[in-house]
Amino acid sequence: MTAAVSAGWVAIAGLGPGDEALVTPEVSAALAAATDVIGYVPYVRRIAPRAGLIRHESDNRVELDRARHALSLAVAGARVVVVSSGDPGVFAMAAAVFEAIEAGEPSWRALDVRVLPGITAMLAASARAGAPLGHDFCAINLSDNLKPAALIERRLRLAAEADFAIALYNPRSASRPDGLDRALDVLRAACADSRPVLFARAVTTPAESLQIVPLPEARGDMADMRTLVIVGSSRTRLIERAGAPWLYTPRSIA
Amino acid sequence: MTAAVSAGWVAIAGLGPGDEALVTPEVSAALAAATDVIGYVPYVRRIAPRAGLIRHESDNRVELDRARHALSLAVAGARVVVVSSGDPGVFAMAAAVFEAIEAGEPSWRALDVRVLPGITAMLAASARAGAPLGHDFCAINLSDNLKPAALIERRLRLAAEADFAIALYNPRSASRPDGLDRALDVLRAACADSRPVLFARAVTTPAESLQIVPLPEARGDMADMRTLVIVGSSRTRLIERAGAPWLYTPRSIA
Repeated sequence: MTAAVSAGWVAIAGLGPGDEALVTPEVSAALAAATDVIGYVPYVRRIAPRAGLIRHESDNRVELDRARHALSLAVAGARVVVVSSGDPGVFAMAAAVFEAIEAGEPSWRALDVRVLPGITAMLAASARAGAPLGHDFCAINLSDNLKPAALIERRLRLAAEADFAIALYNPRSASRPDGLDRALDVLRAACADSRPVLFARAVTTPAESLQIVPLPEARGDMADMRTLVIVGSSRTRLIERAGAPWLYTPRSIA
Repeated sequence: MTAAVSAGWVAIAGLGPGDEALVTPEVSAALAAATDVIGYVPYVRRIAPRAGLIRHESDNRVELDRARHALSLAVAGARVVVVSSGDPGVFAMAAAVFEAIEAGEPSWRALDVRVLPGITAMLAASARAGAPLGHDFCAINLSDNLKPAALIERRLRLAAEADFAIALYNPRSASRPDGLDRALDVLRAACADSRPVLFARAVTTPAESLQIVPLPEARGDMADMRTLVIVGSSRTRLIERAGAPWLYTPRSIA
């Protein structure tokens, strides 16, 4: 046990959008070596139980508690994987772990802490629809738990002015039922065109659905907690065909 | 052979930043099923030769020719993987293939064309440094082959005004030796602070190097063609420790 105590580590791993074929071998190897897995319930349940692995399920919105728990276990010698969906560095657990370290025990700074990237939702959604992020783009978290609504609206206006394609994470939740409608109103006022908007729900899972509508017709109730929204730039285009159209943004503005 | 002829497809696949442990099982499966692999020389050379697989190496900057070649082969029954580094939907081959389809043969629209996501450079660089993309961010391609320098500078100013962390792709090349210096000057004028800038070179490969400097000290010659640059937002922070510091952007602005 002494060797194990000195070898504690924390890996903050991204499980990708849902399909196990999108989990990197690096993440699978970390999970195979772990003694403990920590995360929000639905992500922890994606990890198969096995002897020697303790699965710690936690509620949403307790990211800092979860991070401190992981760090405390690692200091005591555990090999801990903190699981996020998508990529852990994009609106997920990696920043929470570093926040906990910065404010926490000095011993935590000496830990082996690694971030293992994953396929974040906007890349998976983009791939399923075509290539809407083929030119400059931005990613904005619509959750206003962590920032004022006025800042979100200001960023949306500037992003439209810059003519980015815009990926909207956490577009809607039970506690913020009208946030996406407000965001779409801001974008309609700033854009005044019919650029396509992609609603990509539960991408790469059996519940996947994709919907593309022109910005004037986009409504907040087209999204739920499992939806990633991509608002095209002024140049994002549809290629019509017999099946679902492909959505893409050309590389060149010429 | 008749069955094979009817079963042609194109998969546009992301190989990730370099480490084979970051290639998704989905991409590995597509490569195992392929008859042809097409891409820029260094990416095609990452694919091991095997019987039944033809590897087509092409130069850089011939993306549309490469896309048309892939589509023509697939119409004739080949199972073609177009390889990009990183994610194919981010400043890579996916948009080029859809551009070729839109302008090309009607038969191409009936093809089975799939985009297989990968770990794009900014996610890999962010993971190696900590979590600098933990809050809202944008991605800007500094190559001015495909857009005017004035548009790049305008987007940089608006991105700074929105207080995004900013990932800069293709920051420097032999044909544009001063593009990154110009971009850094624009950001210094817009930001007027000492936020950290990450130069992440050849991430996850044996040649990997990371350098973090304050924005006033950032210079174009700190990057080359294999570098991804992340300019922090106003809130991006360093956690000092015995080893290399961790770089992260808190989730909350409160």
